[in-house]
Amino acid sequence: MKKSALQKARAAYQPKLPIVLTGAVKAEAGHATNSVADQEAIKNLFPNTYGLPELKFEKSSTPTPSKPVNVGVILSGGQAPGGHNVICGLFDGIKKVHRDSKLYGFLMGPGGFVNHDYMELTAEFIKDYRNTGGFDIIGSGRTKLETKEQFDKGLEILRELNISALVIIGGDDSNTNAAVLAEYYKSINAGVQVLGCPKTIDGDLKNDVIETSFGFDTATKVYSELIGNIQRDCNSAKKYWHFIKLMGRSASHIALECALQCQPNVCIISEEVEEKNMSLQDVVNYIADIVAARAAKGMNFGSVLIPEGLIEFIPAVKRLIAELNDLLAEKAEEFATVDAADQRDWIIDNLSEANAKVYKSLPPRVARQLSLDRDPHGNVQVSLIETEKLLSEMVGKRLEEMREEGSYNGKYASLHHFFGYEGRCSDPSNFDADYCYALGFNAACLIRAGVTGYMSSVRNLTKPSVQWVAGGIPITMMMNMERRNGEMKPVIQKALVRLDGAPFQKFAAQRDEWAVNTCYIYPGPIQFFGPAEICDQPTLTLKYEHQGK
Amino acid sequence: MKKSALQKARAAYQPKLPIVLTGAVKAEAGHATNSVADQEAIKNLFPNTYGLPELKFEKSSTPTPSKPVNVGVILSGGQAPGGHNVICGLFDGIKKVHRDSKLYGFLMGPGGFVNHDYMELTAEFIKDYRNTGGFDIIGSGRTKLETKEQFDKGLEILRELNISALVIIGGDDSNTNAAVLAEYYKSINAGVQVLGCPKTIDGDLKNDVIETSFGFDTATKVYSELIGNIQRDCNSAKKYWHFIKLMGRSASHIALECALQCQPNVCIISEEVEEKNMSLQDVVNYIADIVAARAAKGMNFGSVLIPEGLIEFIPAVKRLIAELNDLLAEKAEEFATVDAADQRDWIIDNLSEANAKVYKSLPPRVARQLSLDRDPHGNVQVSLIETEKLLSEMVGKRLEEMREEGSYNGKYASLHHFFGYEGRCSDPSNFDADYCYALGFNAACLIRAGVTGYMSSVRNLTKPSVQWVAGGIPITMMMNMERRNGEMKPVIQKALVRLDGAPFQKFAAQRDEWAVNTCYIYPGPIQFFGPAEICDQPTLTLKYEHQGK
Repeated sequence: MKKSALQKARAAYQPKLPIVLTGAVKAEAGHATNSVADQEAIKNLFPNTYGLPELKFEKSSTPTPSKPVNVGVILSGGQAPGGHNVICGLFDGIKKVHRDSKLYGFLMGPGGFVNHDYMELTAEFIKDYRNTGGFDIIGSGRTKLETKEQFDKGLEILRELNISALVIIGGDDSNTNAAVLAEYYKSINAGVQVLGCPKTIDGDLKNDVIETSFGFDTATKVYSELIGNIQRDCNSAKKYWHFIKLMGRSASHIALECALQCQPNVCIISEEVEEKNMSLQDVVNYIADIVAARAAKGMNFGSVLIPEGLIEFIPAVKRLIAELNDLLAEKAEEFATVDAADQRDWIIDNLSEANAKVYKSLPPRVARQLSLDRDPHGNVQVSLIETEKLLSEMVGKRLEEMREEGSYNGKYASLHHFFGYEGRCSDPSNFDADYCYALGFNAACLIRAGVTGYMSSVRNLTKPSVQWVAGGIPITMMMNMERRNGEMKPVIQKALVRLDGAPFQKFAAQRDEWAVNTCYIYPGPIQFFGPAEICDQPTLTLKYEHQGK
Repeated sequence: MKKSALQKARAAYQPKLPIVLTGAVKAEAGHATNSVADQEAIKNLFPNTYGLPELKFEKSSTPTPSKPVNVGVILSGGQAPGGHNVICGLFDGIKKVHRDSKLYGFLMGPGGFVNHDYMELTAEFIKDYRNTGGFDIIGSGRTKLETKEQFDKGLEILRELNISALVIIGGDDSNTNAAVLAEYYKSINAGVQVLGCPKTIDGDLKNDVIETSFGFDTATKVYSELIGNIQRDCNSAKKYWHFIKLMGRSASHIALECALQCQPNVCIISEEVEEKNMSLQDVVNYIADIVAARAAKGMNFGSVLIPEGLIEFIPAVKRLIAELNDLLAEKAEEFATVDAADQRDWIIDNLSEANAKVYKSLPPRVARQLSLDRDPHGNVQVSLIETEKLLSEMVGKRLEEMREEGSYNGKYASLHHFFGYEGRCSDPSNFDADYCYALGFNAACLIRAGVTGYMSSVRNLTKPSVQWVAGGIPITMMMNMERRNGEMKPVIQKALVRLDGAPFQKFAAQRDEWAVNTCYIYPGPIQFFGPAEICDQPTLTLKYEHQGK
């Protein structure tokens, strides 16, 4: 690997550990826990790992003797900055337990565990990955660990390598699977601990006890750099509206954090759209009104942030998609015989009146995408819809109506951007470098504490990292029952943006001013070597959530 | 303006000046110069400003007395990082000449000069813009300064404000116009000096005496950060081919610099495509062969860089577009009566055989774009063509053919990106912050030297900035005659990528290895506060060009 100058310099960075983890620790157990909902059901499904206590590590004055431990690690799902540091922290942690401990990485995600593709991670090998972005150290994958066959197959390689603990670095689904695996291994007395680490740039894996998932900090800083640059361009040329779609799956945390960082003219929050039962046209009108208000002040330019998941949160569109899926499945044969030129009319004739109306309101290109581009299960591929173009096109139409009504008299030209892959593998910010290293190191402490079914937890994150609090949270505590593919399943509750939460409230209190004035902030690129107020700040989401407590 | 933490810290950065400019200077004149071509024609058009000598500033031991000078400044054309620092350097420079000197900024580009929209730039006002990106200090615009009426109208406001020197910060066209304006004011003895500064992220304003335009350094570093991040994602998930289009207009300097920085699997250089008379299908086959070669080694992922101007450099496409423009203009009435569904066939029937074949080879969506989306002059809008999607689609088709032939047996999925606006207004790198400040400060020295029709020149740029050489280059020296809108015009020769130049040669020598292996480099974000090997490096283009000398 030919390294960039920055990579070489960053290799020397020593992530800051919470002070408590720098010496010998003992695990202090809190009260027994309950799941956030559906307690009876969850308890029945996790008889061996339900109700465990929260753990908090405290300094211990009496180091206990230790023996080597072999540990396996899996990177699961989409990349997030800092994953390499979780592995480095875990490695250093188990080496501190005993220098003969070994770390094995399963390759290309959970598939490597099931298929016995692995490598030993040595000090020499991992040194090139310290404080770097990406998951390329062992690769990642989206295989779901769900079946007994997979668990048993995986157990074979764990036995072969004498691995007694498995750490799964993943999002809500992967950690759910970690809990199921922990329960299973416990139930058969396999002698293997299973632990999780909270990963996702989307920021939707958090709750009262997990303050944030790793990667959210860095990814939102990269997107904010780009949004700030675009806004500065926008405010220099003064002739374009920039529509910027941002990754984040269902939740709007990324869009919200970027809005707090950059103060755009518009930021749509999907959760609010759903709560207010807004139609697509309502969203369009909201934006068009702001375009018109700025035009009236002579400003024919602006910025609009759009969360990736928006379209699915618009109740009317959600209903249309549901009916379309059913319709195209039920009448697949008939639809196949319809001429391309007549498909639009056929769909309109076959939809209920309400959904036909929504369908007709969509630009033809988008409507076409909805009926033609379907996934292997025959479902409409909502993620293919270029919401940023859809909205800007509909806003343009609405402005023409307003021009005829006399309520708009400006120029409107739009440009489009979608940011996602640009931020998932960035070099981790100092925050994520420290947080991830601590999560991994802390996982080693949980292994030493002998527990299973826990998620590595590092808290107090708005304080300097030496003051962070470390421990473990029983994964079952975060679970409830949800319908998945027609079946009720135990899953970790996904954290959407709370409209009563401090981050959204801060945004809502200022957005009207940001809309009509130009209050852009230009955060610039992530810095690693400068003063702390530039290099060591957590997200505003985290700051406001803590202030709100 | 609410400032980001980085902005606050960067405000304190003092750009490093060439040592020669830190004290009193005298201008040493070299030999009389000639234009790069068409010397008689250029000489006739610029009787008063042709043949001037190159100037180089040297330390002077005898400071001469000075009086206040009023100066006007214009930002012209697309944004480039560092524009604000040119203005700050100019301000500090004329204040050093005399503390009562004044700087006026014309608003929103050359239009502000013609329309008398201006503001005085005070120390208090500009301090918020030091070392920041964007052109928002006074705005920019694309009005072309070309007519005597504009020149005379502008002269009125110069007289009113007692301005005796005008600095135009722009690209090749704007500097050409600066030379014409300088000649005109000289010819009427207006008593106004006109000077230019070389700006453009595209890097196509350079020659033997101008080493680089400002903004190229920062913009390519921003794009390289993003390309690096995407390549790390690509190398982690190992399942996508990322097609990345990069700004840069006709020239491929940006794509080439990013390729040298990031070592992608493929980078297309438009100038080479033209030189080798490659067809679109040739380009597609070249990429498809690399996809197949990587697939054969188990790597179904990769990165492809595409310069924005590619499509216009493909000779066959160029010919098709020329005929389409003529056809749709000549037979506009007939074409208007053709049913949408029959337009494709109509076009194919009416084109020459060779061009019809090329037209048929294009994906229908792209072919449609070519015939339907025309600009106000009726010309095909080549810039609207999403080359990144066009190529990935055609590569997909080619791979299916290869699969049938048995020469490909992989999986192919692609993602698309276009980077441009993300980098034009970034905070300038230390290089651009220093270079721009020096260009502006040096322009003040040229004003004091009493010359006109010169471009501010700062050279020796691969050395530490204190060792840079400062002076002035007669703009006519860079000119030749070119056909523009059917007329021969004097213009600054645009610098395309030279296939015999060191940067391209370095790339060409390594690209086959980069293609089939994975040699990605991840440059990371621009750093301002770290060690010099990270923060103070010029582009590789500049380094190799200097090594090649």
